[in-house]
Amino acid sequence: MTAAFQDWMKTIQAGMEHDMDRYLPGADAVPAKLHEAMRYALLGGGKRVRPLLVYAAGALSGADAAVLSRAAAAVEMIHAYSLVHDDMPCMDDDELRRGKPTVHVAYDEATALLVGDALQSQAFLTLSEAAAAGLPPARLVAMLRLLAHASGSAGMCGGQAIDLDSVGLSLTLEQLERMHQLKTGALLRASVVLGALAGKELADDEIAALDDYARAIGLAFQVVDDVLDATADSATLGKTAGKDAADNKPTYVSILGLEPSRVLAEKLRLDAHAALAPFGDKALRLRELADLIVQRKA
Amino acid sequence: MTAAFQDWMKTIQAGMEHDMDRYLPGADAVPAKLHEAMRYALLGGGKRVRPLLVYAAGALSGADAAVLSRAAAAVEMIHAYSLVHDDMPCMDDDELRRGKPTVHVAYDEATALLVGDALQSQAFLTLSEAAAAGLPPARLVAMLRLLAHASGSAGMCGGQAIDLDSVGLSLTLEQLERMHQLKTGALLRASVVLGALAGKELADDEIAALDDYARAIGLAFQVVDDVLDATADSATLGKTAGKDAADNKPTYVSILGLEPSRVLAEKLRLDAHAALAPFGDKALRLRELADLIVQRKA
Repeated sequence: MTAAFQDWMKTIQAGMEHDMDRYLPGADAVPAKLHEAMRYALLGGGKRVRPLLVYAAGALSGADAAVLSRAAAAVEMIHAYSLVHDDMPCMDDDELRRGKPTVHVAYDEATALLVGDALQSQAFLTLSEAAAAGLPPARLVAMLRLLAHASGSAGMCGGQAIDLDSVGLSLTLEQLERMHQLKTGALLRASVVLGALAGKELADDEIAALDDYARAIGLAFQVVDDVLDATADSATLGKTAGKDAADNKPTYVSILGLEPSRVLAEKLRLDAHAALAPFGDKALRLRELADLIVQRKA
Repeated sequence: MTAAFQDWMKTIQAGMEHDMDRYLPGADAVPAKLHEAMRYALLGGGKRVRPLLVYAAGALSGADAAVLSRAAAAVEMIHAYSLVHDDMPCMDDDELRRGKPTVHVAYDEATALLVGDALQSQAFLTLSEAAAAGLPPARLVAMLRLLAHASGSAGMCGGQAIDLDSVGLSLTLEQLERMHQLKTGALLRASVVLGALAGKELADDEIAALDDYARAIGLAFQVVDDVLDATADSATLGKTAGKDAADNKPTYVSILGLEPSRVLAEKLRLDAHAALAPFGDKALRLRELADLIVQRKA
């Protein structure tokens, strides 16, 4: 990881923290408890992988920074809401997230439910206000549509539903891949495409190349998650380690084994690089993000 | 209630059932259980008050039927998702809705959580596709923004949060009104404004008049809900009657008493009529809907 890449990441992470703080209602706005809990769920941590992807893809389309900021915040709000709901007792029943008590533990279940619901609305609200930054409205409608599709039953929510129904079952590799393409992959791919849509129009083959890239890193992300869940400790992860095995969930590690999972992640990293070839230097950050996703330790 | 009004309602209710069926993924689309449960929550019943308001307001702006259908379906999806989540054990813990077992009873809690989440995404997806019907994209962005604002922490979710925090407290009439303006009022007002935005642009004083109307019927809706909860039986309501008193929730009936609540509802009905005066005959359906909202028995 180069120093320039690390600086770029830190700048975006700090910028997101600042911008998302502005996009959310203040912690003292009525109802104060809900707004405080929304801030607890969204601000102050997280790797911000999805915003980084939005910005890195935005470099390909020459997108305006103000539009990228809103698109990145919207995706991160969807991601944050899904974590709040997934952690609830009726789902994964997790007590630790990003090293802090989960929202239903820090507050209560009803508040966690509403925080997730309100963060989803806030995502669409935040993105819908990108029109002021000079983006053509038709493009903005396409971005809103993409975000809604990636979030819903044909995307993230659908993947979560398949995941729930898979506990205790032995999935084939194909079934596992399909689940993750929806559960994690849909929003990661949306991040890349949103960044691309935020600027000048790309050619069809460029969009296809980006889609190949996004598919590879989306899958790699989950393979590495499974490897880390099986090998890292809770303090490093900032969430409960070993949950998948304890919950009897099918994972890449349980189906392929540990070492073949690592080999698969590395292959996907190279696939991602190959997909970016047509973009040359402009895709530098996307390449580095593929490396980060596969080589991360938490 | 005239026969013409009843026919108009039946036509829209049947049309909504048909259109929402098309807007939702099929019950056999993967993941089938989630899609089946989304259909269970949205289709087959309900008064469709919000869609009726969208269509009635659309008559003022000469809106295209295809756009109204998508706007109406989007609002109804937001409403349906909120019912699914509100009924969950960590919120109101209700077992009966529209005369059927609630989603978490018919399926399970995790599915109910995901059904609500996915229906919210589906609302924005459904509305975002109204561009194909010839609506200017900038107008569509304004409609998506309005829906997101009315649904989130400054609207419906915020009202629900205030409601939760009010259990067992004695609210002033002002505090109660503020809660309901968010919890129920925000989405009812959004329905009216969405219908207006879907057609030709209205003058500022016309929008202000519509807003007065929407505020009056939004509040009336809740006052009548409280009266019915205190006086009707569960079979008539299709949901558990007497819940508010049992849950020690502040209501118009508990603060004002039964008869003064009825008088207030009637006053609000007349306020709604007065607000519509500038529109003449074109506002006939909006007038009849105000009557329906106040004079309904369930």
